[in-house]
Amino acid sequence: MQRHFDEQIQELHERLLLMGSLAESMIQTAMRALIERNESLSQEIYRKEKEVNELQIEIDDRAIKLTALQQPVGTDVRFLFMASRIASELERIGDQAVNIIENVHYVLKASALKPLIDLPMMGESAEKMVREALQALVERDCVLANRVLEEEKKLDAFNNQIFRELLTYMMADPGTIERALALILISRNLERVGDHATNIAEEVIYLVEGREVRHHHESKTLAASE
Amino acid sequence: MQRHFDEQIQELHERLLLMGSLAESMIQTAMRALIERNESLSQEIYRKEKEVNELQIEIDDRAIKLTALQQPVGTDVRFLFMASRIASELERIGDQAVNIIENVHYVLKASALKPLIDLPMMGESAEKMVREALQALVERDCVLANRVLEEEKKLDAFNNQIFRELLTYMMADPGTIERALALILISRNLERVGDHATNIAEEVIYLVEGREVRHHHESKTLAASE
Repeated sequence: MQRHFDEQIQELHERLLLMGSLAESMIQTAMRALIERNESLSQEIYRKEKEVNELQIEIDDRAIKLTALQQPVGTDVRFLFMASRIASELERIGDQAVNIIENVHYVLKASALKPLIDLPMMGESAEKMVREALQALVERDCVLANRVLEEEKKLDAFNNQIFRELLTYMMADPGTIERALALILISRNLERVGDHATNIAEEVIYLVEGREVRHHHESKTLAASE
Repeated sequence: MQRHFDEQIQELHERLLLMGSLAESMIQTAMRALIERNESLSQEIYRKEKEVNELQIEIDDRAIKLTALQQPVGTDVRFLFMASRIASELERIGDQAVNIIENVHYVLKASALKPLIDLPMMGESAEKMVREALQALVERDCVLANRVLEEEKKLDAFNNQIFRELLTYMMADPGTIERALALILISRNLERVGDHATNIAEEVIYLVEGREVRHHHESKTLAASE
């Protein structure tokens, strides 16, 4: 029985990893669509979104069934609750990729506003956070999880810089307002990807160390953008 | 044993309700600060944020401990997983109230842009969604839960209207861009409150009917605002 249970826990890890790599690749594709001005990539994103959604339901069902049938105790219960919450974070990362591709549509409606120096870097930073948070989970690695929390500060700095720069564009030429707003929203979408990765990293730290690191305040305001 | 277990499930409901009414009152206070141009109300919000955060940890611990110690089966397991996820939705509603009050700070830095006709109504609509989602949970009422899903469309319509109106202000007078952006962000904060209430309502429908209604796509894009 125990062996069987361990195998099922292992499978749950693998499904989470698969879901994580799908979500990460969705962000990557959405950013490529922006950079290469290629909206046809959206098809790939919508296809993967369906997979991610199905995986969330599957992972949730597995966690609940394992709990009900195997009646685990201690850390195993904690992990099963966590798996269910992490799946919902990953599903929201997928949603953000969809939001990005929809915002890209508005960016591509007109000529390029400026070279997109910072947004691609911000995208890479967000993808890295997702990848490392999942790796931290699999390896129960708190050092790596803490690195994800550190990386979030970088993401906030990108967000502020992008916001300030685009604000000057809008002030100087109202004709740029719509495109600039779409870019601002994309940088906020990426920031939210970072938030979800941070939530996963915090879950890992809690699972491993039993230390509560949730509820650092995540600021999503104009203030944060100045 | 069973009686004790039922009592603890009942207590969990009560803690969720308390957490929900705190989160709802935080949104209400943040909107009052905007309407009455009274920033000192922020103190009350930060105080309640602490309470809400503590309640999340408490509810999560209760759910995990009940699962580990009482080894529940079937619907009870499902409810315990759900309680943990609903607590995290409520905590995020509290975060949005903090974001709103921080954005209010930027609105109040300058004279009023226009009478705030739509934002207060949007705020009331979002608060109502939170209240009804919690009520649907307690009463296992799918009709009410579905009403919350309907209400979200109203919130989206408000958001679009507010966005369009503020866009014309920004276009006409770049001097209004910062204030207008803060108001746009507040309407997005309220939209996210609605999203979290919707997530709770969807959990209720899933718990009661076993029907999966999650993964309607929540659009948070410029597209959604046009």
